[in-house]
Amino acid sequence: MALIVQKYGGTSVGSIERIKNVVAKVKDRAEAGNRMVVVLSAMAGVTDSLIKLAKQMSPNPAERELDVLMATGEQQSVALFSMAAADMGLPAASLLGFQAAILTDRMFGKARITDVETGRIQELLDEGKVVVVAGFQGLDWDSGDVTTLGRGGSDTSAVALAAALKADVCEIFTDVEGVYTTDPNMVPSARKLSVISYEEMLEMASLGAKVLDIRSVEFAAKFGVKIHVRSTFTDREGTMVVPEDQITEKLIISGVAYNKNEAKLTVKDVPDHPGIASRIFTPISQAGIVVDVIIQNTSDEGKTDLTFTVPKTDYDKARGILSQTAQEIGAGQVTGNTAIAKVSIIGIGMRNHSGVATKMFTTLANEGINIITINTSEIKISCVIEEKYTELAVRALHDAFGLAEEAAPVAEDLV
Amino acid sequence: MALIVQKYGGTSVGSIERIKNVVAKVKDRAEAGNRMVVVLSAMAGVTDSLIKLAKQMSPNPAERELDVLMATGEQQSVALFSMAAADMGLPAASLLGFQAAILTDRMFGKARITDVETGRIQELLDEGKVVVVAGFQGLDWDSGDVTTLGRGGSDTSAVALAAALKADVCEIFTDVEGVYTTDPNMVPSARKLSVISYEEMLEMASLGAKVLDIRSVEFAAKFGVKIHVRSTFTDREGTMVVPEDQITEKLIISGVAYNKNEAKLTVKDVPDHPGIASRIFTPISQAGIVVDVIIQNTSDEGKTDLTFTVPKTDYDKARGILSQTAQEIGAGQVTGNTAIAKVSIIGIGMRNHSGVATKMFTTLANEGINIITINTSEIKISCVIEEKYTELAVRALHDAFGLAEEAAPVAEDLV
Repeated sequence: MALIVQKYGGTSVGSIERIKNVVAKVKDRAEAGNRMVVVLSAMAGVTDSLIKLAKQMSPNPAERELDVLMATGEQQSVALFSMAAADMGLPAASLLGFQAAILTDRMFGKARITDVETGRIQELLDEGKVVVVAGFQGLDWDSGDVTTLGRGGSDTSAVALAAALKADVCEIFTDVEGVYTTDPNMVPSARKLSVISYEEMLEMASLGAKVLDIRSVEFAAKFGVKIHVRSTFTDREGTMVVPEDQITEKLIISGVAYNKNEAKLTVKDVPDHPGIASRIFTPISQAGIVVDVIIQNTSDEGKTDLTFTVPKTDYDKARGILSQTAQEIGAGQVTGNTAIAKVSIIGIGMRNHSGVATKMFTTLANEGINIITINTSEIKISCVIEEKYTELAVRALHDAFGLAEEAAPVAEDLV
Repeated sequence: MALIVQKYGGTSVGSIERIKNVVAKVKDRAEAGNRMVVVLSAMAGVTDSLIKLAKQMSPNPAERELDVLMATGEQQSVALFSMAAADMGLPAASLLGFQAAILTDRMFGKARITDVETGRIQELLDEGKVVVVAGFQGLDWDSGDVTTLGRGGSDTSAVALAAALKADVCEIFTDVEGVYTTDPNMVPSARKLSVISYEEMLEMASLGAKVLDIRSVEFAAKFGVKIHVRSTFTDREGTMVVPEDQITEKLIISGVAYNKNEAKLTVKDVPDHPGIASRIFTPISQAGIVVDVIIQNTSDEGKTDLTFTVPKTDYDKARGILSQTAQEIGAGQVTGNTAIAKVSIIGIGMRNHSGVATKMFTTLANEGINIITINTSEIKISCVIEEKYTELAVRALHDAFGLAEEAAPVAEDLV
C-alpha cells in the first residue's frame, strides 16, 4: 500500500466543478489501495481578492494579520473539497496548518517550515480517511501565530508533508503537463521531460521556469522526496524530479530557460582598489535589493567598469543608490538598461562534457545576437542579451541542442 | 483599570469604513485606560455567502467541514480589524478560536463552550495590546477540530470570554440601541429599557426578541456577567442586563414579545388513558421537532383533545407523524393552523403582583381578539392568537401596561 501526497494548485480547484473533478481523481487512487494526503491551494483568484481586500483596509497591512487573512483562502478550499468528497463516497477530513502541525518560523508572509508532526495525519489515515491539508499555511509553535509560506508555498507544504510522512511520491498537479525543455508557449516544439534532477530543476526554477516553487525543490532535494509534476486535466504521466543518481541517461542539456525580469546597471571608471566592491554593494543590499550577475572589467589605468543585474522592480531604487555611491567614491557615469533578458541552458550532463559553452556562444553569434554578460555554474550557462532577441535566442538554442528530438543528446553520446 | 469585553456584530463591521469606525471607538476606550478584548462577527453578508457556497458544493454539507468553512468569516474580520488598528495607532493582535483557547464540545454547527483558557489573552493584554477575538468559533480540544457555535454565537463567545477573564462588563454592540419594551418597528412608542434581569431577557429572547442570543444570556446568568447591550452607531447608553438582585425598581411588565414562527396542531378524540401523551410525542421528538405549548382538554367520555405548537418549518413533518400516530392509537381527526402567533408579556414584578393575567385577557377581549391557548410561567404569560391580530394585540398590551411611559408601573406601585 503506497502513501501518496498530492498537491493541487489554484486553477485545479478553481470552481465547484473542478473541485469535484479533483475529488474523482483522488478517489480513483484511494480505491486502488493507496493512502492519500491531498494538499490544496486557494481557489484561483481568491488569494488576489484577499490581497486586494487587505490593501483596501490598509496601505501597508500588518504582516501578522495579513497571514491570518490569507490563510482563509486555503481553509475554504479544504472544507469545500472535503464536503464534496463526503458526497461522492470518499471519507475525507480537512486539516488546517495548525491541525496538521506544519510548524514554521515566525517570518510572516514567507515563513519556513521547521517541522511537521504527523500524529494527527497518521491517525486519520489509519481511520481510512483521505487527509486534506490546507497548503501555504503553518503555525509558529512558540506564539501560536498563523503563518504563511509565500507565493507557491503549497508546493512546499506538500513536499514537507511527503518528507515527514516518508511518502512514496509527492505528486504536484498543475495546469501544465510537466517540466518542458523550454516554455512551450514560446517554442512549440518544446518537449516534456520524463525525468529531471533536483539540481536542474532548481536552476530552471531560479532562472525563470515557473512550474515548481524553488523552495519545494530545495526541500525535496534535502529529504530525497520524489516529485511527480503532472497535469490535473489529463491522466498522462508528467515529469519525475528525482536525485541525480536515479537518472540513468543524463541529458547534456535538459532545458533552456529565460528571464525578462532583470535590469542591468553599469558604473564606469571605478577606482580599482581593495574594498571598493563592498563599498558599492553594501548600500544596495541594505536596501533589500538582490544583485545577480556581477561583471568587472579591469582596465590598465587603475580604473574599472562594474556591471551587475537587479530585478526590474528594484531598478530605479538601485540606480539612485548607485549614483550616490559613484559620486562619493569618485567613480564615473552610471548607465543602465532595462531592456535585457537572461537566457540560460541547464543540464547535469554538462559536467562531463566540453564544448557546450562554445556551442551556445556560436549559436547566438550565428543569429546576430550580442552577448552582454556571461555567467556559468557547473550545470548551467547564462547569457544576458538584449530583450528583443529573447525568443530568437531561446528557439535557436532549443534547436541547436536537439531538445525537440525524442532522443535528445545524452552525456554518453560523443558529439 | 477596567477590563472590558466588547462584541460587534456583522452590521457593525459590515464594510471597510465601518471597521475603521469601530477601531476608533475601541481606541477611545483603550486610551481612557481600559484593557480591551474585542469579539467580532463576520462582516454582514459573509456568513450567508459562505452557506450559499457550501450549498453549491453539497446539498447537505458535511458538518465538520461546514464549520471549517464558516469559521473563515470571523477570521477575515479579526485580521482586517487588526490591520486597521495598527494603522490607526492602536496595537492589536487577532486571535482565532483555537488561539484564544475557546474550547467547546464537538457538536458541529451548534457547539457549546466548555472552557476558555485565558493565558494567551492575558499575555497580549499585558503587552498593552487590544485582543481581537474571532467570535462564533471554537476548538474541540480532544480532536483539535474547529467548531462553530451557531447563529448568534459571537454573543456567547463574548460573554464566555468576559466570564473567564472576570471582565467588568461585556458590551454587546449591535444595530439597535438596546432592549426595548417591544419591537419598535411595530410599536413606535416602544421605550428602551435602561436595565433588565437575566430571567426577563431569557424569556424575551425565547419568545421572539432578537437582540441577544439566548445562550449568551444563559451563560451570563450562570457566571454573573453584566451585559451592556448598545448601539455601534451612537454613544448613548443602552440596556444593562444584570442579576435580578441588582434591579431596584422591578417593573411589573418589562416587555411585550411576539413570535409568528409557530404553528398549531390538534388531534381530536384521543383515548384518555395513561401513556398516551408519551405515545404521541415520542415520535415527534425523535424527529428532532421541538414542541412548545401543550394543551389538553379532558372530556367526559374518556376522550380528550390535544393541542400543541411546533415551529412553522416543522409543521408539515409534524402533521404527517401525528396523522400516522392518530391512526395507530385510534384517535380522531388531526387539524392544524399555521396562521397563529404567540403574544407574551414578561416581567419579574409579576411574581408579587396579582391581576396581571386578568388585565392581559381583558385587554385582548376588548380588542375582539380570541385567545386560542394560554401558557404561563412565574414571569411571563403567553397567549396564542390568530396571526392577523398580532400587531393589534402587541400595541394594545403595550398601552395597557403603560410601557411607553417614562415611569412604567413597578411592582411596588399599587394598581
